[in-house]
Order: sequence, then structure tokens, then C-alpha cells
Amino acid sequence: MSNAYAQGLDANPANFVQLSPLSFLARSALVYPKRISLIQGERHYTWQETYARCKKLASALAAHGVGKGTTVAVMLPNIAAMFECHFAVPMTGGVLNTLNTRLDAKTIAFMLGHGEAKVLITDPEFSGTIKEALALLTGPKPLVIDSLDPDYHQGESLGSVNYEDFLARGDDNYAWQLPENEWDAISLNYTSGTTGDPKGVVYHHRGAYLNAVSNILAGNLPQHATYLWTLPMFHCNGWCFPWTMAANAGTSVCLRKVDPAVVFPLIRQHQITHLCGAPIVFGMLINSPEAKTIGLDHPVSGLIAGAPPPAAILEGCENLGISITHVYGLTETYGPAAVCAQQPEWGDLPIAQRAERNGRQGVAYHLQETVTVLNPETLQPVPADGETMGEIMFRGNIVMKGYLKNEKATKAAFEGGWFHTGDLAVVHPDGYVKIKDRSKDVIISGGENISSVEVEEVLYRHPSVMAAAVVAKPDAKWGEVPAAFVELKDSAVLSEADLIEFCREHMAKYKVPKQIVFGPLPKTATGKIQKFVLREQMKSASAIE
Amino acid sequence: MSNAYAQGLDANPANFVQLSPLSFLARSALVYPKRISLIQGERHYTWQETYARCKKLASALAAHGVGKGTTVAVMLPNIAAMFECHFAVPMTGGVLNTLNTRLDAKTIAFMLGHGEAKVLITDPEFSGTIKEALALLTGPKPLVIDSLDPDYHQGESLGSVNYEDFLARGDDNYAWQLPENEWDAISLNYTSGTTGDPKGVVYHHRGAYLNAVSNILAGNLPQHATYLWTLPMFHCNGWCFPWTMAANAGTSVCLRKVDPAVVFPLIRQHQITHLCGAPIVFGMLINSPEAKTIGLDHPVSGLIAGAPPPAAILEGCENLGISITHVYGLTETYGPAAVCAQQPEWGDLPIAQRAERNGRQGVAYHLQETVTVLNPETLQPVPADGETMGEIMFRGNIVMKGYLKNEKATKAAFEGGWFHTGDLAVVHPDGYVKIKDRSKDVIISGGENISSVEVEEVLYRHPSVMAAAVVAKPDAKWGEVPAAFVELKDSAVLSEADLIEFCREHMAKYKVPKQIVFGPLPKTATGKIQKFVLREQMKSASAIE
Repeated sequence: MSNAYAQGLDANPANFVQLSPLSFLARSALVYPKRISLIQGERHYTWQETYARCKKLASALAAHGVGKGTTVAVMLPNIAAMFECHFAVPMTGGVLNTLNTRLDAKTIAFMLGHGEAKVLITDPEFSGTIKEALALLTGPKPLVIDSLDPDYHQGESLGSVNYEDFLARGDDNYAWQLPENEWDAISLNYTSGTTGDPKGVVYHHRGAYLNAVSNILAGNLPQHATYLWTLPMFHCNGWCFPWTMAANAGTSVCLRKVDPAVVFPLIRQHQITHLCGAPIVFGMLINSPEAKTIGLDHPVSGLIAGAPPPAAILEGCENLGISITHVYGLTETYGPAAVCAQQPEWGDLPIAQRAERNGRQGVAYHLQETVTVLNPETLQPVPADGETMGEIMFRGNIVMKGYLKNEKATKAAFEGGWFHTGDLAVVHPDGYVKIKDRSKDVIISGGENISSVEVEEVLYRHPSVMAAAVVAKPDAKWGEVPAAFVELKDSAVLSEADLIEFCREHMAKYKVPKQIVFGPLPKTATGKIQKFVLREQMKSASAIE
Repeated sequence: MSNAYAQGLDANPANFVQLSPLSFLARSALVYPKRISLIQGERHYTWQETYARCKKLASALAAHGVGKGTTVAVMLPNIAAMFECHFAVPMTGGVLNTLNTRLDAKTIAFMLGHGEAKVLITDPEFSGTIKEALALLTGPKPLVIDSLDPDYHQGESLGSVNYEDFLARGDDNYAWQLPENEWDAISLNYTSGTTGDPKGVVYHHRGAYLNAVSNILAGNLPQHATYLWTLPMFHCNGWCFPWTMAANAGTSVCLRKVDPAVVFPLIRQHQITHLCGAPIVFGMLINSPEAKTIGLDHPVSGLIAGAPPPAAILEGCENLGISITHVYGLTETYGPAAVCAQQPEWGDLPIAQRAERNGRQGVAYHLQETVTVLNPETLQPVPADGETMGEIMFRGNIVMKGYLKNEKATKAAFEGGWFHTGDLAVVHPDGYVKIKDRSKDVIISGGENISSVEVEEVLYRHPSVMAAAVVAKPDAKWGEVPAAFVELKDSAVLSEADLIEFCREHMAKYKVPKQIVFGPLPKTATGKIQKFVLREQMKSASAIE
């Protein structure tokens, strides 16, 4: 046929609507107006209330001049205001820039300047940093709005108006619009950037919509899940879970700080079904006294990301009653966009093998197109032999638009039509991707590549080890040798020699750390170990030696 | 900012992929190669096998010249071949036209001609109709392929090749492509068209993708659902469930004919989690002897559409252990795109009120934008008072591209940027849409509008009534008066006078049927009562009187 299907069948407002997670909020407010959207301490909001508050905030922001492409920065803990900003800012056409609350003033000042934030909503908890950052800011100053939490009494107010008063200026009948195009920016997330300036990762409405739904599928969320905010909402927009909870018409339980003494009672009180976090977060929970004194009275599902979950953590979670799914991604992929999808036969394996299976980065999210391992030179797939290393690459709709005002980095990241993660990995015969290392974390010793992750996995198997990080130590003879930083469990006693001996029993000799430093490890806000700090420390120490 | 978000952040192959349900098949084959995709009698296929078979079929079709915009028609029951065609045809860029197996030869011939089918895959069960249809066809004849089911031995082969031999010609490494554009056609579904020629409803990849996922959310499907094919796959592409099952990596259990003696054993044997159908299908199940002799041993979820489920059916399903969700839509909206989302408080209501709540058409699907009731003249929403009538209209991505080669009908359907359903309805104060009638089913008696649906609902409340349909009867004095056709339950005895008396007790006098005809009601393949047949019957009878 002279393609009759291409004639007279164009898109029109009846059959084509821009994909945006804002639609989920409108739907939940319509269908479940009285259902609880969010709990913060003693305060409970319904979906109707949340929707009305978001419209008021959007209206007040619009009146202040926030519109398409305007950046609104927020420096907020996991409270109602932070959740509301995920909807109110894009309702105006604006872009939400969630700032990492652990960052220093200089970096925050850079982000406010680079992102050209017109408004900054901040919490007194971070007033020290923000005050300094605003002083450092050379360009136009944003309107500063203080979000005052009735349950938090420290810090100081910096702004000209507080959040509730500002919101009250708005109109809850504000006629917000879907984006002109689903490709329009919805949020801006700066990477922590261990070297050079942070890069501003831009998400679009289409990706946020699809990832919000994909989280439901990957996490097997029932209708109306109850979600505890152990993951910072500033981190990849809380992996898009504010939008997931709107799609799911679930309940968000807020949490200012991950403290087991607070977490366990909240899980019981609200019958939490799901929570997310780095392995360190789950490690903190299972190793806390509250795990024994309070514990859980119902099954809980955990999505774990940021690092492969060690066997001890998987086992601890299992014993406690948290069923773990390991997910993987980067800021550039809206947080996790790969999942280590569990196969029923794994259930019969001993814990060590089960941990090995679950510790892999896995396969693409349901609504992500592809995660694969390619030879970074030829862009050809590596054989699925579990041996041949390549670079993990993503392709699909859950990949950023690019880096803001950084065409060079954007072009490099998307070279050849793939998003290059910088993570080195193999593909197992079952098609599951397994990270061997970050490109920059590989230790090259006497010409041999040593995967720091592989060495760390052995260290984690030692019963006294709480956390471990392996980095390169400069070496006159070998170029580099592996060295380890190890944090022991409370009251554990272990010598460097004994741990090195343990390593010798479990790996090739050239991979065994030549030095082990005991002590607490530096971590990011999301619980990732800051390897670059340790790497610098090891370099300085070696220079002194 | 001079919208920095609009610069240097364009779509590229790394971050933009066309939405297509074909991606779900590829994913399930990669992630769950050994999981069962489909069961047909003694035959079991894995996702790996289904994927390979689809690629072979696609390759063989492409070799025959099937490509972008080519129509492949199928006249098939719910068997593996039908499932495979849902992927193989679009893999080539072709468009799948599923023919309603209950239609007559003349209508089928029209569809083959209008759709310009280049290939027709057919089953011997329908050889009588197809033989005649092919003879009636004046234009080019399609390649005819016979799908031979080893468990079905009637009818005759009509084609030059059988399905398995044709498929075997193909290459299981066939390099299929995603559509050039997610807006490209994926399937063609002719409406049954009670008057005039059937209209060819065209679906696109984007809508099929989104509806496939939306089914998971509306039906609360767990990962790896087990789905029994009580709904014909030819009907709105089985409401998109072939694609849903691929997204869900679930198992499809095939069924040539809805027979309780087969259905109950299959539900038990395969631990079916979900099935779909019209109320009549569920009615048949709950009223069958097998409901008592075999019954269910685990909870089953049912999606019910085509007509509001009467209280007796809801109650029967509850007693049997089938939890029902009522969904609503039309061929033009990919089947259901609205759901009567259940509210927890309904659970405490008596069955009659629960049935009333669940009998409403409800709210938009999660991934459909809007279902609403508008004044068809002004396109303004009617007040949510449960009284003011208007026309149900949809807007969103789960709405057809339009009618094939019928710009006039397409334009009319989309007038004013809404899809006009032709269903008359009200909106209840809780925002739920409730159908009062099809525009053409309203009975106008002495200037008053009478909703045929409202009268039917009263008839259904009578314990002896199995099915009921109310139509207009021409009347010299009133113009029209309501008349009813009623099918009684087995062994029930009821007089016309008694049933009219029952109606008088439950409705305004002018709405009471003036005549009641007892006997079996004519139904479509999907179990919908064919009101137009009854309407014609009543007109002819009145003319004779």
C-alpha cells in the first residue's frame, strides 16, 4: 500500500499528550483525594492537599518570574517541601536543582552560579554553608526562601520569606501546564565531580515519567506502597521516587536523617513496604542495636544501589526480613536504570553464591532500552564470557539530555550513540553485567590490571570487616600496588598481617593489598565511600615515605 | 537564563529510543530466557523460544515483501501463532490486522480489501468463512497461510503453505528494527460497525507500549503473572495483553474457546493469576456446574469490561474467589483506558452498593491522560453532580491514530481535541464517570430521555434474570417506549407481568418497559449483547403489529 497508515493519521491534542510525571500527581489527587500522600512527623497530607500546595507554590514561583527553563535550587532534607518542589517547580516550566546537602560552600556557590538559580529554597540545618555560599556568589543573588520545619530548631533563617508564607501567596487554582515538549528539562543534578567542576546533569519530563513507572516494575511495588525516605531526595531526585509515589498513589514517610532509632519505629508504625539506599545504609540498620530490640514485624523490600551489596549485608537483611533488590545506575541515568533481576533458582543457592549473583549490576530496567558492555574503542559488545572487560554503556529513554552548558562533556559522554559510564565490567553468560571497576579505579601493577572491586569483595567476606576500599598506592618497582582502607565492625579486632593472610588465601598474590589502613572511611551523603579522598591520602603518604 | 536548557541538549541515539512493545519481548528473552512465555495444550514455549520464533516469522514475512505499512491479517483463535504475530508483524514494520473470528464472509472480505492485506494467516476452524471471503475479494489476493493446531482437527487448509513451514523459512537472527517513529502504526482493529462499513482503528507503537504497562498498574499484576486467555486476542489486540505479558515476563495460557469445563482445570493447573472478559464470560464461569465441582484453590484477579458488572456477577465472583476490577474503553482507546479504581472503604458496603460503585466506568488509566464527561456542544465539563449528562471523552496517549482511509470519521472523532466516545454519562461527586447510555441507545419517550442502562440495571437486580437488554419500541403515542429482552437463569420461571411489577417498584413509571420478551440474547464474540439486533427486531415486530 502507498502507506495509507502515514496519511491523515497525525497526532492531535486528543491522541498525543506530552509525557510528564506531573500527570501522576493530578491523577492521584483526582482518584485518591483523601489518601495520605506524605507523613512528616505529626503532619499528614492527603493527595488533594499535596496537589493544592504544589499548585500554590507553583503559582507563587510563577508570580516571581519562574517560567520555562528557570532554575530553582533547593538545599533541603527529606521533608514535605522537598517533595512538593518536585512537582511545583516543573509545573511552572522551571527546572529543579536539588543540591547535595553535604557539599561545601564553594561548591554550592559554583552550582548556584552555573545553574543561574533564580530562587533558592533552603533549610536552617544548612544555613552555615548556604550563608557562606551566597557570600561567595558573584552573579545575581537568588530569592532565598527558608523552609522552616516545626520539628527542627537549630540553624538560622537566611531569606526574606519563609516557605509557608511564600506558598500562601499562591493560588490553588493555578492553571499549570504540561511541558511544551516531553523533552523539556525537569531537573538539574550536579555530579559530585571528584576532579574539576561538577557537571550539571539535565533530566527531561519523558525520562522522569518512564523511570517513575519503571521503579514500580523493578521494585514490584503494590498499588499504594508505603515508602520510607532513607535515600536523600537530592540524590538523582531520590532516584525519581517522588514521581514514582505519585504514579503509585503511595505514601511517603519523611526522614531528616537516617538514624536506626528513628527508622525502626517508623517502619513498624507506618508498615513501610519499600525503602532505598546504599549498602552502608542497610549495613547501619542491620548492625544497629534497634535491629534486635525493635526489629521488623512485616516484610519490607529494599532497593540497594551505589555499590554491590556484600554477602554479609544481604544475609543480614534476609535475617531481619528485608528482601533486597540490587539496582545500578549513575546520576546520568536518573539513578538506577539497571536491575539485578532475581531468578527463582538463586533462592536455593548458599548465601555466598546468592550474594555473588545479586551483587551484579544486571540487566536494563523494564523501560530502559539497553545496558551492555562494549569495547570502548570499537563499540562492539564484549563476549558474554564473564572474563572480557569492556565499558558499561546505556542506551534508552532513561538517559540524561546532557550536561548543562558543557557541550564537550556531553559529546564525549554520548560518543557513538551510547552513554559511556566509565565503569569497567564483564558480561556473564546469563547476560548479566558485572562491574569490575571504575576506569579510574583500576590498579595497574607491573602491567597487570587489578580490579579494586574484586579485592574489596574478598575483604568484605572477612567477618570482622564492616567496610573496605582498595586504591592504588604508587610503587617504585611495580608502578602501582593495591592498598586497602578498612573499617572494622564495632569491637572487632584484626591485625593487618592477619587480613593480608586472609587475602592471600582468596586471590592471586599480585592482587593482595600491600598495605592495610584501619579506621573509619570517608563517605558521601548517600553512603558511597569517597575513594578519591583515600587515593589522595595514599599518594600523599607515599610521597612522604 | 537565555534558556541554556534548550541548547546542546538534543536527542541522540544514546538518550532517545522509540517506544515500542517490541522492546519488552527482547528484554524478557534476554533476562528470562528459560521462563515459560506461553502454554498451548501440551506445548510449552520459553521466552527465548518465543523470541526466536517471532524473529523467524518476521524474517519470512519480510522475505515475502512485508515491510513498513504492510498489512498482515490474521483470523486466529487464542493460540501461539496469534501471540507470535503480535510481535513478528511489527518487527518487519508491518501492521497486524486481527479479524474478529465471528464475522461473516462479506465483512471479512471488506476488511481484507480495505486494509489491503498482503498476507492472511488463518485457522481451519474458520475455513468456511475465509474461503467465501477470499472468493468475494475483488482486489489482489493475499498470501494465505494455514496455522495448524495439532489439537484441532476440523475445518480445512486453504493456503499454499502452513504456518510452521513458513516460519521455518525464516532466520532466527533476523535483524529486526524498532519503528522509525513511535507514532508508526502497529495494528489495525476494525470496529464491529452496526451500521455502514466497519471503521479501521489504527494503533501506534507508543500507545501499545504505554497501555501494555498501564495494564500492569491497573490490574496490579505481580512480576511474572500467569494469564489465561479468556479474552479473544483479536479484540483490541486482546486489550494489549500480549504486549503486557512480554513487559511482565509472565506466562500466557492459551484457550481456543471459553468453556468452563476447560477453564477451571486450567486455572488450577497453572495457578492462573489474571484473566479478562466481558461480564457474560464471568457469568458463565460462576453459573457453571464446574464452579462447584472444580472451583478455585487460590485467589484470581479478573479485569471485566464491555458492560458494567451486575451485582450478581460481582457477588458470584467474590464467592468463587475471583477479585474483579471493572475497566472501560473502546476499540479506539486500545480497549480499556479507564478503570473503576477501588477505594478501600467500598469493602465495607453491602453488595448492592459495592456493585453500584464498581459498576461505574471510573477514572483514567494510570498512563492515559484524561477521561471526562463534556457537554458535546460546548466541550465544557459537566458538573460532578451525578445528574448532568454529557458525552464521555478521552484524551491521552492511549487513543488511536485515527481511522484508516477515513479522514471524515477521524476528524469527527477528534473534534475539538477530544476523542468522542458516543457514550452518554454523568460524573459523580467523587470524580468517577458513570455511563447512562450510548447516544444511540437513549430512548426518547414523550420528550423525556430514558437511559436504557438504568432500566437494565434494575432488571439485573431481579434474582431470576441472567441477562437483559432494553431498547426503544416505536410507539404511536409516545414516539418511543422502553421494551426489554430478558434471558432467565436456568430453571428460573418468571412472567412478564411479574417482572413489569418488579420494575414499577424500582423506577419512575415512564421508564418501566411496556413489553418484555424472554429468550436467549444475541451476543458478540466478546460477550457483548448485540442491541442493534434487538432494536431491529423490535422495530420489525412493531411494524407488523
